[in-house]
Formats: sequence, C-alpha cells, structure tokens
Amino acid sequence: MQLATFSYLGREQVGLVTQDHTRIVPLNQLLGIDAPATMIELIEQWKDLGPRLQAVSVSPDTGLPVVDVGLVAPIPHPRRNIICLGKNYRDHVAEAVALGGLTSGIPAAPVYFSKMVDRVRGSTESVPVHTGVTSMLDYEAELAVIIGRAGHDIDPGSVHEYIFGYSILNDITARDLQKSHDQWFKGKSLDGTCAMGPVIVTADEIAYPPALDIGCSVNGESRQKAVTSDLIFGITEIVSDFSRGLTLMPGDIISTGTPAGVGMGFRPFRWLKPGDVVECRIEGIGTLRNTIE
Amino acid sequence: MQLATFSYLGREQVGLVTQDHTRIVPLNQLLGIDAPATMIELIEQWKDLGPRLQAVSVSPDTGLPVVDVGLVAPIPHPRRNIICLGKNYRDHVAEAVALGGLTSGIPAAPVYFSKMVDRVRGSTESVPVHTGVTSMLDYEAELAVIIGRAGHDIDPGSVHEYIFGYSILNDITARDLQKSHDQWFKGKSLDGTCAMGPVIVTADEIAYPPALDIGCSVNGESRQKAVTSDLIFGITEIVSDFSRGLTLMPGDIISTGTPAGVGMGFRPFRWLKPGDVVECRIEGIGTLRNTIE
Repeated sequence: MQLATFSYLGREQVGLVTQDHTRIVPLNQLLGIDAPATMIELIEQWKDLGPRLQAVSVSPDTGLPVVDVGLVAPIPHPRRNIICLGKNYRDHVAEAVALGGLTSGIPAAPVYFSKMVDRVRGSTESVPVHTGVTSMLDYEAELAVIIGRAGHDIDPGSVHEYIFGYSILNDITARDLQKSHDQWFKGKSLDGTCAMGPVIVTADEIAYPPALDIGCSVNGESRQKAVTSDLIFGITEIVSDFSRGLTLMPGDIISTGTPAGVGMGFRPFRWLKPGDVVECRIEGIGTLRNTIE
Repeated sequence: MQLATFSYLGREQVGLVTQDHTRIVPLNQLLGIDAPATMIELIEQWKDLGPRLQAVSVSPDTGLPVVDVGLVAPIPHPRRNIICLGKNYRDHVAEAVALGGLTSGIPAAPVYFSKMVDRVRGSTESVPVHTGVTSMLDYEAELAVIIGRAGHDIDPGSVHEYIFGYSILNDITARDLQKSHDQWFKGKSLDGTCAMGPVIVTADEIAYPPALDIGCSVNGESRQKAVTSDLIFGITEIVSDFSRGLTLMPGDIISTGTPAGVGMGFRPFRWLKPGDVVECRIEGIGTLRNTIE
C-alpha cells in the first residue's frame, strides 16, 4: 500500500496512492468521516484500519489526480526530531573524512544524530539555499524507516514487527555548520532542509531487510548509486540498538544514512545552488524531487 | 509569574503557582473554560492571556496545595527535541576532556545537540538508572530558556523579546553512550533522563541577561556551583546564532549548558546510583528534585 499526505481545499489530508502515483484517494472516502486526519494518527490506528484499507479495492478512476492536489511530505510535522544515522555506508565514510573534524574510519557503533524540522518538505516542494547562512549545502539520499508502534529494548528478531513502512529522505546538510559547531545538529536542521516522500510504502510490500537500489541525481546527472543492503549497521541492528533504554513511538522516522557521492566527495566540491533539481530515487518507493531556490 | 503543569483528577492542567511554591491555581479558575489546556498553548496565546493573568490577584488561600496535586514538568511533551548546549562553562570544558573522544579546548562556536524525550520528568518524579544500558549515568544542572514566539534570524538586540521564561533542566547523560556513538544524541536521550521544573518563571521577573546562582547537590552534598552569567556563549549569542536559517517556535526549550562538578569530573568518577537524590537549584526559580531508581 502506498500512502501520502496531500493538501486539498486548504486542508492537509491522508490518502491512498495508486501504484503508478497518478491518483490519490482520500482516507475519508474509504473510511468515512472518522478517518484519521494525519499520517501519525493513521499509524497509531493501523491495527484496526490497516485490514480495512487492505480490503478496499481502488480502481484507477477513483480519487483525485495527484497533479491537481500536490503531495506534501507523508509526515509534515513529526512528533520528534528525525533520528538520523551518520557514516553508515563504507564508501561514504571515506569521502566524509574530507570534511575534517569528523572522526575517520568505519564507526565501531552506530552514529546517531537528530535533525530538527520546521515542516518536512514533500516531493516537488522547494528547498531554500540559505545564502548568507551556509555556502556548502549538500544532498544525502537515504532510506527512511517509519516506526509503527511503541517499543523499547526491541529484540533484533522482532524489529520487522515495529516497522510501519519506508520512504525516501533527503538529509540536506550545511557542511560548514556541521563542522564548525562540532556536533552535527545545527548543520542538519536549517529550515526546509529535510525533504521526504513522495509516499510511504507499507512494510508488507518490501521484503525484509530491504535490498533496494538507491540513487541520487542532480540536474539529471547521477551522483549517488548503491543498494540499501550495503548499510554498515542494518535496520535490525539500528532499531534494536537505538531502542535500548529508549522508547520509539509510532510515526518516528529513522533515516538510515547516505551512500557515497555527496557534493563533499567531489574535487572541487559540488555544493547545491539555486535552480538545482535534486532527485532521490529508491526502487519500489519512487522519486523524491526538490528544486533548490 | 510562576507557571507549572500539574496532574489533577487524571488530567494534566496548567496553573499559576504562588511565590512560595505551596499552592497552585488552575488556569480555568482564572480564565474560564476556554483556558489553554497545555503550557505550549498558553505560550502561544500569551500576548492576550499574559496581561489577563498579570491583572489577577492570587490570594494565599486560593487554588490547591501543591503537595496534594503533584507537579509534572512544565512542558511534559515538547513539540520538538530539547535544544542543548555542550561545553558552555569554562571549568566544565576542562573536566569534559576526561571523557576522551570529546574535542578539547574552549569551543570557537556554540556546540549544539539535541535531547529526545519520551516525557519530560517533573520535580519529585523519579529517573531510571538504566542498569544494563549504561553504567555511567551523570547529572547536569542547567538554566533552560523557554522560547515565547516564532522567529528566525533573530537580531541580538531583540533576543529578550523572544524569551517567554526560564526553568531548571537536568540534562542527565549516559557518558558511556555519549562517547561510544561518537555524536552525543543517544547518550542524552534515554527514557526519563530529561527532568525540568519545578516551574517556569516568566521573563519579566528576571533581569536580562540572567545572572543567577546555579547549583547541584547529590544526597545533600554540593557538586556544582556557578553563576549563569559565566556562560561562554550567553543567551543573546545562542538564540541569535542558533536561529540563523532556523525558525524557533513557541515552547521550544534551549538548555544552556552545565558548569563544572559533574560526576565525570571526579576521581574516581561518581556516577548516579539507585536511591540518589539529585537537586538542581537556580536562584529565583527553585529546586528541581529527582530520585534515581
């Protein structure tokens, strides 16, 4: 099942997206007026609502054309900061050393940090270049895991039961701020620098653990290319380790890290500039497309 | 004005606390049934409600005895992670080097990180020791700044206009996890390791910038002792710098860093253990008291 949040008649709503991403059926058309208003509420009620939605057949002529409504991020207002992984693909670790100030070498334990968001940007929404604040804006295509139910000290063998679905996240980063403030938090948290979408694909549609082609292009030129099974710390390890002593909540977003090919990895560096179109793609999920402005 | 959140008849409510912290008057007793239900809503409506509350005279016999209702944290469920400062008192920087893995020396720019919370603990609530997850649990008494209205790129000269009030925050930290995961985020975010309270004191009651005695004791023994004017990066610099390219929201909490005297600074180390009573005190705000269990 593919789920999205869209803005229609001035109100954000959740809907079911057809396989080809051309049409969206509002939840209240499928579930009635008591349909959840947000993706987080849908996830919280998934035990009841999931089977009801599975039973619905969506014909290609129902719902609204996606081009008419415009998708926003599947979870525009997360309940907490995005949980992110750093240095989680081997070839990216090597290029990250270039920034200096970042510990070199393959990490012995997962490197977690958080990304604060004002409002997560959806596919086709623009991302500000932040002239005067940063001169080193960079892209990072990542597989995002959406947590389905509350849990802590999650057993590795049970991790898949806690996953609601997957999406694509662009962990846009101000490299200069990432370095100058020592901890990465501020450089990861500028307004509008978290993009996610276009949809959430529910976990039942993707074999666990996901081994999906992931890539990123800028203005049509391929920059990043990898497979999500190449993660140094896989999803099982991340979720079980991070949840030790810490309760994950429905709707929490864990972004699993980016492969090699970011702008920092080129010589000369290739930072994002106004007009650039960044496309992050993951097999089976779609394309997250954002223009820098 | 001193504001707190309390739990009464199974419902969390906001109230006005008398100067001596013995009684609390529920907001709906002062403002009627349309009184805001949470501290964040009160902050958002402060422009209208602040003057109404200022005009109210609270006599010592109104409201409920604080001992009967029990305060919870003033903001139990922040809208985003707590924004924290690291290495922001000179003498604490020296002791922090002991942990290793932390960059040494006085930072050239503010060190920001975030603290994810399940539910912020209030004064008198207990804090779990997390046996098996960490063996190096440590305390950090800090002055917390509560943001009053949305703003980004805040001019240094206007920072005080964006401050709603102040509270005390204990940034309890698992030192082993803070180090082993490279970035500090996970070691700062275990369940129940963020305590705040007992109240928020509104900004009009404290001269700006605050120069308040701050201290922490464990089982009655003084451990930390400083003045909040000794911050390396003061509140004006923190708020104006952090808000560059990043929108702060009403109710956001910025914890300004801790002075020397944490358990990591002693030889041998003095980590928290079950039964320990940690008291963080700030002049004019009160005492935040938590028992480790």
